[in-house]
Amino acid sequence: MDNTIKVAVLGGGSWATALVKMLCENLDEVGWYMRSSYVKDHILKQQHNPNYLSSVEFDTKKLKLSNTINATVEYADYLIFAIPSAFLNEELSKLSVSLEGKVIFSAIKGIVPESGLIVGEYFHDLYNVPFNNIGIITGPCHAEEVALERLSYLTVASSDEKVAKEMANRLSGPYIKTKISDDIIGTEYAAVLKNIYAIAAGIAHGLGYGDNFQALLMSNAIREMKRFIKRIHKMKRNINNSAYLGDLLVTGYSVFSRNRMFGNMIGKGYTVKSAMMEMNMVAEGYYATKSAHIITSKQKRKSKTPIIDAVHAVLYEGKDPKKTFLKLTEKLD
Amino acid sequence: MDNTIKVAVLGGGSWATALVKMLCENLDEVGWYMRSSYVKDHILKQQHNPNYLSSVEFDTKKLKLSNTINATVEYADYLIFAIPSAFLNEELSKLSVSLEGKVIFSAIKGIVPESGLIVGEYFHDLYNVPFNNIGIITGPCHAEEVALERLSYLTVASSDEKVAKEMANRLSGPYIKTKISDDIIGTEYAAVLKNIYAIAAGIAHGLGYGDNFQALLMSNAIREMKRFIKRIHKMKRNINNSAYLGDLLVTGYSVFSRNRMFGNMIGKGYTVKSAMMEMNMVAEGYYATKSAHIITSKQKRKSKTPIIDAVHAVLYEGKDPKKTFLKLTEKLD
Repeated sequence: MDNTIKVAVLGGGSWATALVKMLCENLDEVGWYMRSSYVKDHILKQQHNPNYLSSVEFDTKKLKLSNTINATVEYADYLIFAIPSAFLNEELSKLSVSLEGKVIFSAIKGIVPESGLIVGEYFHDLYNVPFNNIGIITGPCHAEEVALERLSYLTVASSDEKVAKEMANRLSGPYIKTKISDDIIGTEYAAVLKNIYAIAAGIAHGLGYGDNFQALLMSNAIREMKRFIKRIHKMKRNINNSAYLGDLLVTGYSVFSRNRMFGNMIGKGYTVKSAMMEMNMVAEGYYATKSAHIITSKQKRKSKTPIIDAVHAVLYEGKDPKKTFLKLTEKLD
Repeated sequence: MDNTIKVAVLGGGSWATALVKMLCENLDEVGWYMRSSYVKDHILKQQHNPNYLSSVEFDTKKLKLSNTINATVEYADYLIFAIPSAFLNEELSKLSVSLEGKVIFSAIKGIVPESGLIVGEYFHDLYNVPFNNIGIITGPCHAEEVALERLSYLTVASSDEKVAKEMANRLSGPYIKTKISDDIIGTEYAAVLKNIYAIAAGIAHGLGYGDNFQALLMSNAIREMKRFIKRIHKMKRNINNSAYLGDLLVTGYSVFSRNRMFGNMIGKGYTVKSAMMEMNMVAEGYYATKSAHIITSKQKRKSKTPIIDAVHAVLYEGKDPKKTFLKLTEKLD
């Protein structure tokens, strides 16, 4: 482990908090940016995040807390972004220091709504970050189980094996095992697409489909994901590895997943707007559905993506969930 | 559909009851054998099975009920066996009529303990049933959801496409969709192996591993299943099809699965014997573990099957579940 490399997490949510916890197990110093000064002060005084994973106690001597994004970006060499994708654009607009030479890890698992891009592509296209300096941290991993120190496995992807290893070593510990990968495109798309499939699982559940159908849906989802990703970026990958199938399952089977919950409300008869209002947030999969649909629509020979198409029809085309899913059941096997 | 073909289900449990329900939607006459004369009489009088899926009402005019296996075997051309594998040998010992010319479908999903064989192989080896006359009916499908008429998908496998289609047509209906396959060996092994993985999921849960680990375990299980089946019978198959991955998921994620429950008790500290006594039955996966382990042990170059090995160590080698699973976590990724 190269001890000169400084690492920071950007974000104040549950996944950011879990990442800081993992890093604190291995490092003497961890940068941590969150926009709320109240949260920052609370952590300093009470040693825990007041809003997320509040059972996790931090050794505040290790934390380089800041509520100025520029300070944190300046501080660190490896930046782990764990800001919800809906706020990423806004947060980065505050940036006045350069990202040159920085290694950007995305732990976001979402599409940046303004651009329709996955986070790696977004940093590459808008901030000229070379793909070699982009990494992905992906599950299967609920933050809540990290808080409980339940064994979890992460995949750290980077085109540069050394970079992936440096990050993986910093995250590994008694309850975190890591695996490295060079598939930055595939792992990030998998993390994004799984939220669409979790919405589909939620809609199906809301409509009264049972466990038999859920298993069938996940079996179709992983095949659809494979086709989708292969078309975007063809390389040798085993779609049943934990970064793809594992991540799909942990979300698709979680009753706590916000995407699944959002879908469930739609299946039960809420309109898209009222479900969003009720949840007081936008599920990541909502944007992912739009972007994934744009991607397949642009293809000359469209990938076979019946599940994404069905979710898109319900969320964006005003189609009736019941009828749409009835049609979907004819396309699955 | 060839209307001269007569079909019968053998077994009085929940899966047998569900199969009879599906068949009754399409046929005017369905043979049904169960050993208990009490159950037979109850169905005739009360139109439902007293012990399983008792909400399902039968039109008893359609049922050719019998508690003599020979009568049912004589009656039907297609025999669907849904007797728990632990009792199959004993039931078949009553047989005095020939199986010649009969098509044998297995809906059993287990290993015949006395022989260590899957059901298709058992009928082939012990009763000279040619492989062309053997078929498999497999999930993902909980019988309970069939009772509720929740949409479920079945795979019907046979080397003879016509036979598979004849059976699939008889099972298909408004809440049952079917798919045919020619992989009688692979689908049956998948149905058997998934019970071992469900025991593993149960042990892990009993030991306190969480949802992150469960997703990781399933992602490893499907890869292990693929390697195992490929070694037994190499052919082109997509292991993510519903008969393999779907069936694994519906069982591995079901809190009602007896195999998962059995594993859970072991994880929580019950001995194998006391867990069996407490459950008042032997989970199918118990025998499957032994047979699968014998199969891999005989291989010159053993397949990499860390999950099966760990379950075997706990169930048959008296190894401590906690230590064994701790070792297992090092082998998964």
